[in-house]
Amino acid sequence: MRNLKLVVQYDGSRYLGWQRQREEDPERPRTIQGKLEQVLSRMTGEKVQLIGACRTDAGVHAEAQVANFLTSSTLSLQEMLSYLTRYLPEDIAVTAADQVDDRFHARYRARRKRYVYRIWTAPQPQVFSRRYCLHLPGTLDLEAMRRAAGLLEGKHDFRSFTTAKSRTKPAVRTLYALEVREREGWVELHFEGDGFLHNMARILTGTLLEVGAGRLQAEAMAGILEARERSAAGPLAPAQGLCLLEVLY
Amino acid sequence: MRNLKLVVQYDGSRYLGWQRQREEDPERPRTIQGKLEQVLSRMTGEKVQLIGACRTDAGVHAEAQVANFLTSSTLSLQEMLSYLTRYLPEDIAVTAADQVDDRFHARYRARRKRYVYRIWTAPQPQVFSRRYCLHLPGTLDLEAMRRAAGLLEGKHDFRSFTTAKSRTKPAVRTLYALEVREREGWVELHFEGDGFLHNMARILTGTLLEVGAGRLQAEAMAGILEARERSAAGPLAPAQGLCLLEVLY
Repeated sequence: MRNLKLVVQYDGSRYLGWQRQREEDPERPRTIQGKLEQVLSRMTGEKVQLIGACRTDAGVHAEAQVANFLTSSTLSLQEMLSYLTRYLPEDIAVTAADQVDDRFHARYRARRKRYVYRIWTAPQPQVFSRRYCLHLPGTLDLEAMRRAAGLLEGKHDFRSFTTAKSRTKPAVRTLYALEVREREGWVELHFEGDGFLHNMARILTGTLLEVGAGRLQAEAMAGILEARERSAAGPLAPAQGLCLLEVLY
Repeated sequence: MRNLKLVVQYDGSRYLGWQRQREEDPERPRTIQGKLEQVLSRMTGEKVQLIGACRTDAGVHAEAQVANFLTSSTLSLQEMLSYLTRYLPEDIAVTAADQVDDRFHARYRARRKRYVYRIWTAPQPQVFSRRYCLHLPGTLDLEAMRRAAGLLEGKHDFRSFTTAKSRTKPAVRTLYALEVREREGWVELHFEGDGFLHNMARILTGTLLEVGAGRLQAEAMAGILEARERSAAGPLAPAQGLCLLEVLY
């Protein structure tokens, strides 16, 4: 058996997210994992089970998601890439394939993940990026957002920033960086962390946007973290602005 | 009457090009001009006739097309922009509106136009820009393309580089710049000229790509210009890679 690692790019607009759903018809997949497994299974003649690094939500995109699977197929990596380019829909692309050692596991071995949340702030819409950003016309207080971002960086219990219901699973994560960048009408929030709870990047975004709009003080971040209650944080930002940029091993 | 100038951004994928067609049903427009005129006519209660700076082909995009129209409407520019943002489809946006003097004519007054043709050269497709580029995996000889581009710059009879059939209409244009730029898998051809004949940017692109692939010598450009025959130049590059960037007055 070979253990193969794939780098996957996708436009999440049409999909119910990364993770295959229990009730999903394997012949009519509506998730990215489901679609990839369908094509990989046809390619190898085996029932492929893919392990993805990140379970991105419905509508979230990926520049470079990472996944791995075991196969007995004797196809070369180049043959596989050609097959995938030919049979995958235009909104999913496998951009690299590599053979890795048996112990590689896309999820458990991931050390860091990088996401970006893109906001278009000009009054009129942006046609070319319309599916890959949140259009929020107006001026954001970037200095206040940066102060708030600084208070969120580091190792914290991020329970206030997730919609995951479990009170027992650990919610401590390290956010190595949360940067607020600006260029010509765009505001981008760049996240780098050792792991992200369900909806964490989007709730962090929603909270920072409240700060940017002046409806919440940057200094309130400490109290929100301490509360460990979803209701303490800001709203969930829309999925389409979020993109998984990179998984680091 | 007020003379209003609009800056228009569009994803041309779904349209038959800029120019309204004679047989087009005004209630079911399939061109960008037709769609804009439909919404502008509803907005003003008048039969609006729009003058566009460039007649982009079916499938060609625009970052900033310019158009103007006359109206007796008393709506403010801000009210118009809000109306247009609300009623235009997501693949067309009016990004600016200004009142200009009576003599302004979007087409006749245009001094220069800038276009870009985008080529993605990595082996695997690019998901997010898939509708806004040509995917041409492989290596291009950029030095040869730059030599050829240099020979095409300047004032020439570009009859070999158009599908326009007329032998009588003047075909002399000045190409102020034709730059070949490269960055991380992308090759971009930047055109700036006083005017472009029908399909000229796409045939220049198709010809330069022949040079880049080694099927044509850079030094052949002089002979192609002299021939003044469409058959002397290279093929027509696909529409989706082309984007009108700017119209200068």
